[in-house]
This record gives sequence, structure tokens and C-alpha cells, in this order.
Amino acid sequence: MKQAADSALLTDLYQLTMLQAYHDEGLDGSAVFELFVRALPEQRNFLLLAGIEQALAFLEQLSFDSGELDWLRATGRFRTDFLDWLSELRFTGEVHAMREGTVFFANEPVLRVQAPIAQAQLVESRLLNLIHYATLVASKAARCRLAAPDRLLVDFGLRRAHGAEAGLVAARSSYLAGFAGSATVLAGQHYGIPVFGTMAHSYIEVHELEVQAFRAYADSLTGLRGPLMLLIDTYDTEAAARKIVALAPALERRGARIASVRLDSGDLAAHARLVRTIFDQGGLQEISIFASGNLDEWRLRQLLQASAPIDGFGVGTALSTSADAPALDAVYKLQSYAGKPRRKRSEGKATWPGAKQVWRCSGPDGRLERDLVALADEAAPAGGLALLQPVMRAGRRLAPPEPLDALRAHAAAQLAALPAPLRGLDAVAAAQAYPVAISDPLQQLAASLDRQPH
Amino acid sequence: MKQAADSALLTDLYQLTMLQAYHDEGLDGSAVFELFVRALPEQRNFLLLAGIEQALAFLEQLSFDSGELDWLRATGRFRTDFLDWLSELRFTGEVHAMREGTVFFANEPVLRVQAPIAQAQLVESRLLNLIHYATLVASKAARCRLAAPDRLLVDFGLRRAHGAEAGLVAARSSYLAGFAGSATVLAGQHYGIPVFGTMAHSYIEVHELEVQAFRAYADSLTGLRGPLMLLIDTYDTEAAARKIVALAPALERRGARIASVRLDSGDLAAHARLVRTIFDQGGLQEISIFASGNLDEWRLRQLLQASAPIDGFGVGTALSTSADAPALDAVYKLQSYAGKPRRKRSEGKATWPGAKQVWRCSGPDGRLERDLVALADEAAPAGGLALLQPVMRAGRRLAPPEPLDALRAHAAAQLAALPAPLRGLDAVAAAQAYPVAISDPLQQLAASLDRQPH
Repeated sequence: MKQAADSALLTDLYQLTMLQAYHDEGLDGSAVFELFVRALPEQRNFLLLAGIEQALAFLEQLSFDSGELDWLRATGRFRTDFLDWLSELRFTGEVHAMREGTVFFANEPVLRVQAPIAQAQLVESRLLNLIHYATLVASKAARCRLAAPDRLLVDFGLRRAHGAEAGLVAARSSYLAGFAGSATVLAGQHYGIPVFGTMAHSYIEVHELEVQAFRAYADSLTGLRGPLMLLIDTYDTEAAARKIVALAPALERRGARIASVRLDSGDLAAHARLVRTIFDQGGLQEISIFASGNLDEWRLRQLLQASAPIDGFGVGTALSTSADAPALDAVYKLQSYAGKPRRKRSEGKATWPGAKQVWRCSGPDGRLERDLVALADEAAPAGGLALLQPVMRAGRRLAPPEPLDALRAHAAAQLAALPAPLRGLDAVAAAQAYPVAISDPLQQLAASLDRQPH
Repeated sequence: MKQAADSALLTDLYQLTMLQAYHDEGLDGSAVFELFVRALPEQRNFLLLAGIEQALAFLEQLSFDSGELDWLRATGRFRTDFLDWLSELRFTGEVHAMREGTVFFANEPVLRVQAPIAQAQLVESRLLNLIHYATLVASKAARCRLAAPDRLLVDFGLRRAHGAEAGLVAARSSYLAGFAGSATVLAGQHYGIPVFGTMAHSYIEVHELEVQAFRAYADSLTGLRGPLMLLIDTYDTEAAARKIVALAPALERRGARIASVRLDSGDLAAHARLVRTIFDQGGLQEISIFASGNLDEWRLRQLLQASAPIDGFGVGTALSTSADAPALDAVYKLQSYAGKPRRKRSEGKATWPGAKQVWRCSGPDGRLERDLVALADEAAPAGGLALLQPVMRAGRRLAPPEPLDALRAHAAAQLAALPAPLRGLDAVAAAQAYPVAISDPLQQLAASLDRQPH
């Protein structure tokens, strides 16, 4: 059996029964679907796009293998002629997308799929599943980055991420948004992300005395790549810091240099100050202090405002689960079929019809000023930059994946170009929200569709 | 490259550097680690255990392949003698666990691992990653089940679950907790869970007229297994219901029976009442009404309290992200090494030392009354049932996986045996919290460890 992440059956049942109906009806016109977020969570002034690369990889490899087809057959829900047709199905469509690391807002399509209806429909569940979560974490990580712009930030979120893929994707998304790296080893192998490590309380506890653990760990890492970080809060944080002052000269003679210590409990600012003083008075000015333990962007801001002498932070659960906003109102909606624009009109869930483009207008200083959502065939507004660009044609990517570091630099530039109020952690008032206009032709089209019979 | 879910590198870097240090030091004593939740989220009166089966499967298959070892070597962080040793590492330990579907509380170990320190340490990150999320969703699903005990509940959460594995695990956990099934097809293939499907708004919109879509979908499903559910809120819910009344006789003649309709927007209770009346007056008493759209246990309770004539619910995002409590304070802590009990004493994070057992005492009616956390070698309290049972020895499971339906029945019995206040959605006051006592010998052991030097 294929892994969950690669299975064509990682989809909702209705996609397959709808495909069968399209097949029965001979409906194979070209459809345009767009993926967007209907409204930002209260706690988010912007979102940072991620997951496009994984989405394109998914589209390129999509196919049903014989095990999957046999299983579908055994359900009794599908006819043989449909399953035969499904066995040949590949994604052959066209995709436009915003670049990963781009800042975006509510109602702005970040991905547009144009393909025969069956293909474009089928991919809904997994496209959302991939892009939603990657974007969720990138957006949370961006807030951490903005809260602590000059500190080392490391993803510690694997253990409470929602499953294997989430752990891996959280590392990529947070790196994209400006984190220095991740504790997740697999993210190093998969994405070339720098990996960071310290030690656990259990390692300390296995030794009779804390100082034995410090010495043994230092010895083990001597001569190897990777900085030495010691965990000092297992018993008594300041006592441990004093043990390190006593131990450092002997370690130094053996070729081991303590790069940093980690605090993981108690009043982090208070402990950091005491430890900093102990180290500075002990001649260990160069040892940096790293903190972890229930951190998020709010705690980072607090610690920085308190001038806590902390040089880096491990952010875990709050990051990998986007704890204060664990989901976005992300949807993937039909915008046109066989050349005719379509509009869902359900109460409170109406969509803007037609294939669209998002134009971004920036000031002379590069600062983002406003966006315009328009029909894809409208002329460019003066000075507008088209955010949706072609990335896939006939089911193949138009270019190899961009290096993650290039996307990371793009994200950093985007965050720097955000209007100042949006860069803060606090939710901005409606009047300060980033202006996203809907073009006149798009509004007219929506109104005209509302007058059609159904 | 292995998939994320199977990779031995899906772990935190510090696990591997600690293993190298243990290796260098020749530390290979037997360690006991326990996995538990330090405190329940405010919004949870109990938790429902899931993910043990996946955790045991992970332990049985754990090994490093040559690609993983090569990658580790290339980091420059590890010595050849350690990597050679790592290439031989398998999990050979002993595991005790609570049965999946068991209700549990803060500070109660749900899994106990006894193995040589390196093995027991290494598996921390993934054991937590698996059991934490599976339990999170099972606990959320249990609340939905308690809020709507006699309705059909279906997992709709794939698209906004955090990645592929989360989507799949959410289906299993919610079924375990009493859901009827999932929309996620892969959950059907992997776990034999019933899969449910309806249709999407896009299917309706592809057709010129809504009624054409209803007819075509019905025709496509005629003669196949699986009930026919039509989505009626794309344009005007009550108008669609009237179209169905007009359409039903013709469909019936062609052998198609409409089983249910789905509402997905607006005031669900009000729409359901109107639709119910239209159907009843149109002679369609047997068509059931199914609702979806931003549902959670609170909305379910509200709809039931309003006597909304809704027969079933699709619960999506709130379920698969456990939106109101997207993480648990789940940890995996060293309890003893080489026969000596250990205790982490970090501020606010101290643990109960030693290998432990959880005893459950129930009343004559089977109702749960109180639990006792005791040292594993203490005598059983009168009438106590030992919740931790041996499930793995020498790295192999002692029995094949239990059928999911047996675990589901166990979960149902557990929920039925909960004290009444805990079955409600509202957080109980501290005085009503389920009583979990710590045995005297355990308290004495903790105190004696606190007097030891470190």
C-alpha cells in the first residue's frame, strides 16, 4: 500500500462519486478552480503563502494504482467503465500560483487550476490539505519572526505537530518564514534546512550528578561539527550555571567549547538575567542563552520587552499547531466551467466568479499599499504587479523548484514591505486592515450571475 | 527516500546526539519512560486514548537505512563507530499501555516503555507525535458523540487537517470515539472505516440548472451501493427542497431513491425545519437531513437543544484540528534508569518517579469512581483494575492488533461509565474533577529523591 501522503485515495469520497457522474454525463469541459482564504483569523493581519511546491509535486505524481482501483471496485460504489477511465487519469492542467513566501489577504486566490473538470475537481481535498497547513505555520512563524527580529528562532514543534507530515512541513514553513532551522532531523534530509539540537532532561537524569552529564556530553561532541548546548534547568538553574563556570576551563583544555545553555522552565527572563550575570562574572561572556517552553510570538515579545538576555528561542507546539488559530477558512472553489463564469451563492459563503488575477500596488519605497482582485483578462492597473504567475502547463512544472533559501529571502522582503501596523502582533482595526479592492468588472460579473436562473 | 512517516530521521536532533553520548559513555542500562499528559486543557474533562496501535507498529519497524545513515554521516556530527552501532539498532524493549478507547486523566501514564536507554530515548519524538494527535482527536470526537448521542456523525476534516497523516488518523480516532465513519476514502482502505459522501457545490454549479445536477447525480449512482445525498444550499435551500419534491417521483420510477439532503450554510436549524416541512408535506418523510459547515460539539448541542430536525452531521475542521484545544501537554519522561527511580524537578514540571501503574476503581454499576497512580510493584488496591497492561516484549507485540470495532465498543462503554458531570461539554469545577490519587509510596519516593544531591 502506498503511504498516505502519496495515495490517490487521500481524498473525500464525494470527489470520486462526482467524477463518476461527470464521466457518465460526458462532462469534460475545462474548469477553473481557485484556492483562497475567505477571511483571516482574528489574530492574523496577513498570511504568508507556503506549500505550493508540495502541491505541484502532488499534481505531477497523481495516479491510481491497481491496489487503489481494486479497493474502489470492492466498495460496490463504482462502475467498471469509470474505474478503467480513472486508471488512466493524470493531471494535465494548467496552474497559476503566487510565489511561496508571498504575503496575501482574504479573498485573494493564491492558486488557480485550469483543467478538465474531473481532474480539477479531484485534487481539491489534497491541495487544500497541503497548502492550508503549510500556510498556517508559515503565517504563525512570520509573527514570531516579527516579534523577535534579531534572535535565533528554531522550530521545536515535531512532537506535538499533528502527525508525521505536519512535523516535516512545519520545519519547512517556519524556515521559509525566517526561522534559523529546526530540531527535526528529517527536515535536514528532505529540505536541507539547518538542524539544531540540545539535550533532554532525561540525559541529565541518567547521570548521578548533573555535572557528570555536562562533562560527558561535551566529551562526546568534542571534535564533531555542531555547537554544544547544555540544558541547565533540570534541578536548579543558577546552581547549574555555577557548575558550568567551574567546569568550563577543564573542558576548554580538552578542546570543548560550550556554545550556549538552554532554559526550559520557570520565569525565563529572571533566570536568564541571573545566568547571564553568573556567566559574565565567571568570564563566560561568549556563552549564549537559549530558551524554550510554551513559547509563542506573544511570549517572545514579552521577553524582548523585558530585555531578557536571551539570544535564541525554541518555539514548539504553538508554532506547529498554530495554536491560537489552528485552521484557516481556506477553500477551493469553481470559478468557471466550459468558459462560463460560476458563482456559489450560499448564505455567507458567496464567491467572486471567473478566473482572476491579484494585482499588488506598492509605493516608491517598496511598501505594500493595496491589492486589486480582478478578472484575469482585465488590463493591468497602473504600477500593479501580477501575483499569480503560470507555474504548470499540461501537468508539468514550468521550472524546477526554486531553492528554499530564495523563497526565504522573498518572504523576508515581503515581511519588510508590510505596512507597519500589520507587522505588529495585535489585530489591527478594520480601518487599518490592508486594502483589497474588487475590480468593477468583477463586481459587475458577480451581479449579472446573480440574476441568472438556477 | 522513505516516506516521512516511516523515516527513522523523523526525530529531534538531540535524540541522536544523546544516543551518541550514551554510546561513548557505555551507558546501556535499562530505562523506563512513561508517556502522560501533565494537565488537561481547560475545555476537556477527560481524554480518550488513541494511537497505541500506530505507536507499536512504529516501534516494531524502527531502523536506520543506509540513506539515513549516509545523511547523518555527511552532517559531520556523528562518529563512524556510533553510526555503525546505530545501523544495528532495533527496538527490543517492553511496552505496557492502556487499551485504546480508554478514558484517562492528567498525570496518568498511558504508555510505559522499558528498554536499553538509547532505544527508549530515541523513540520519544515519534511516540509523542503519534499518540498525542490520535488522542487529541479521539477526545474531541468523544465530546461530539456525547453532545449528539443519537445522531449520525461523520468526519469531514481531511482538507484542513494538518497534513496527510493527520487526515488519516483523524478518521480512525473519530471512528474509535463513536463517529459513524469518515469522508476520507483512504481511511476506508487503511482501517475498514465506513466512508460517506455527498456532493460539492461545484458539481451543482457545473450544470446550468440545479435540478439537472440532482437528476444526473441520481442517475449516476443508480444501481450502485451507497446512499444518494443531494446538496441543496448552493442557491436557495427551500427552493431546492421543493425541486426535490417535484423530482422525486420521476427518480423513483428510474430506480433512484434520495436518502438525504445536506445543508451547509445559513441558519441550519431554521433551514432544517423549513426543509423538513417541505419534504413531509411532499410525501418525502423518509428523506433525512444532514448538516455541515463549521460544526463542533457546541454547535451540535445548540442544534439539538433547538430540536432542529437534523439526522446527521459532518464535523470537519473543528474535529481534525481539535480547534479549541489543538494540543495536549503530553510528555514522555524518564522514570528510572538502571533500576534507580528518577525525577525531573524543573519548576512547574516535576514528575512522579519510578515505573507506575494506574488503578481504576469503579462502582457496582460500573461507573468510574476514582483512579490511583501507584508504583508498578505496589499491591493492587481493593477492586482496582490495572489499566496498564503488557503489549510488547522483546520488541514484538504480544498479540495482533485488536479490531477497530472492538476498541470502538470499549470506548463507548468507557464514555457511558463516565460520571455524569464529566459527560457534559462544560468544564467542571475543580471539586467535580475526576479524583486521581497518588499512592503514599509514590509520594514518599518522590520526596526521598528530592533530598538526593545532583
